[in-house]
Amino acid sequence: MEKTILTLQDVQEAADRIRPYIRRTPLLRQENMDKTLGCEVFLKAEMLQYTGAFKLRGALNKILSLSPEELKKGIICTSSGNHAQACAYVGRMLGIPVTVIVPEDCPKIKIENTQAMGARVVLWERLFAARWKKVNQEAAENGYSIISSFDDPLVMAGQGTVALEILEDYPDIDTLLVPASGGGLLSGIATAVKELGKEIRIIGVQAAASAAYYFSHQAGHPVVVESRPSIADALECSRIGERNYPIIEKYVDDFAIVEEEAIKEAVKLVARNAKLIAEPSACVGVAALLSQKIALRPGEKVCAVLSGGNWSLDMLGKLYNNELPEALH
Amino acid sequence: MEKTILTLQDVQEAADRIRPYIRRTPLLRQENMDKTLGCEVFLKAEMLQYTGAFKLRGALNKILSLSPEELKKGIICTSSGNHAQACAYVGRMLGIPVTVIVPEDCPKIKIENTQAMGARVVLWERLFAARWKKVNQEAAENGYSIISSFDDPLVMAGQGTVALEILEDYPDIDTLLVPASGGGLLSGIATAVKELGKEIRIIGVQAAASAAYYFSHQAGHPVVVESRPSIADALECSRIGERNYPIIEKYVDDFAIVEEEAIKEAVKLVARNAKLIAEPSACVGVAALLSQKIALRPGEKVCAVLSGGNWSLDMLGKLYNNELPEALH
Repeated sequence: MEKTILTLQDVQEAADRIRPYIRRTPLLRQENMDKTLGCEVFLKAEMLQYTGAFKLRGALNKILSLSPEELKKGIICTSSGNHAQACAYVGRMLGIPVTVIVPEDCPKIKIENTQAMGARVVLWERLFAARWKKVNQEAAENGYSIISSFDDPLVMAGQGTVALEILEDYPDIDTLLVPASGGGLLSGIATAVKELGKEIRIIGVQAAASAAYYFSHQAGHPVVVESRPSIADALECSRIGERNYPIIEKYVDDFAIVEEEAIKEAVKLVARNAKLIAEPSACVGVAALLSQKIALRPGEKVCAVLSGGNWSLDMLGKLYNNELPEALH
Repeated sequence: MEKTILTLQDVQEAADRIRPYIRRTPLLRQENMDKTLGCEVFLKAEMLQYTGAFKLRGALNKILSLSPEELKKGIICTSSGNHAQACAYVGRMLGIPVTVIVPEDCPKIKIENTQAMGARVVLWERLFAARWKKVNQEAAENGYSIISSFDDPLVMAGQGTVALEILEDYPDIDTLLVPASGGGLLSGIATAVKELGKEIRIIGVQAAASAAYYFSHQAGHPVVVESRPSIADALECSRIGERNYPIIEKYVDDFAIVEEEAIKEAVKLVARNAKLIAEPSACVGVAALLSQKIALRPGEKVCAVLSGGNWSLDMLGKLYNNELPEALH
């Protein structure tokens, strides 16, 4: 097979680079979900990561790879969510300037969280192309380094460290369910697992409302798919990653898509049985099991990566209470 | 000082006995709570324990110490909550009969959870004395071994294993905040810590609504205190443990009490910052910090034991949403 731009060694180097600054999150054997989900359930609890999501890993690996001169000038990214918080966190830790271009309709709480960590927040049009134009312009003017949220080998390598920890804790996993948006986490994990020679099935999971990878995989080439709003807001994917797609096509075994109702049930199941707060986007793997979208053999050991837990508490409260407004259904 | 009925060796033996059957729960350094709580915050996440609470440790240690003949005849306990679920779980694991005497006004969901694990549930008067009369009668008639939820050295020793794990993970803790109800967890932890010769401050925390230990400690002898209903329902304490009290007086440094509002804020803070589902009773330590009930020196390393996460999801949803009915305030 053709060589891709990311290697196992990149992921291993990332693990060494970021180890002092991340939490080694627990892999939880969740026996009390086996009956409901039809397999031996393992959960990788990345909501317990500092900043509440796996995104810290990739941001750290990228930023720690910058030169002292680059660091001094500062970094820039565009995100309204977990990647912005990760960049702001690392920036504060290193004492460097951080600029975040945020869609102007972004929830106030996310803006405040990012500002609270000392980042400069610039509100801009939601449109992807417009935001990236602004990123490039600010970067050129100020000498900022651009930190992509997924379309960068160093970012992918950082996210892939999740897989190294899972395999260290439990080498006999049969299947890994990984949420897919831009594809950073999925490409990193898939590279690490397959280049270690592991016969582990890797399945990318998306919300049916925003399933660009699923349909691209079906078509055999990247396709553009219109996104509908989804409760799994962090997975809304306006484009699949140019650098991620070839890796994913090479190493990912299959894709699954899940409906909104299944995602909500999965969030509740994780809360009730695992006592963890997972954001809806983090629960698509559990949702895929819950709605029987994954073919399983008896006794299969399945690990769902719970990618994060950053969702507003009152929305979560409404979800737990089956009181979410229809607009989000 | 007078010798108490529990020793460090008992706790160490308990750790060896129960190790294969429990989850070694993570000790989480929660930097994002430092500013709010005024110290370096560590959380011992016992809601991640199998059965969702620390109670499994004590029940396991007691039940695994029974003889094969005793095991064959079965066990009995009285509890409406975490202890009942722990006994049912261990009983199912060992394939032995389990009977639970449950207050007749207990929430249906708790009864169903216990029954789902194969335990026989007998509804009985809420009154403590009446329930214990029934326990003793059933035990005499059927040869059941009685599993106390706190007033038994083997149960205390099991709960004390929480402390051994904390000290293994982070030996330099300055202060431990431990929820207190009957006193099983507190006496076990205090014995382990102090008999290891550690200069760690141990503070028992209770809801102001149900503060028998707090007032007994003030008085210098056990006092009877009327309990008001509290959102920290698992801490409602109709009597302090006869066997626990002398240990607690010997080893516990101080007590604190917290109000209902502070407990609710603590549950939300833990959810928002640590992404963990904690039941209100588990959050009294965080509530004590939040309402400045603990004198702290700068940079103090404080560990709050989050004892469990079993609360109905719709109640939690209401709490997250500030919509709890007044009856629980």
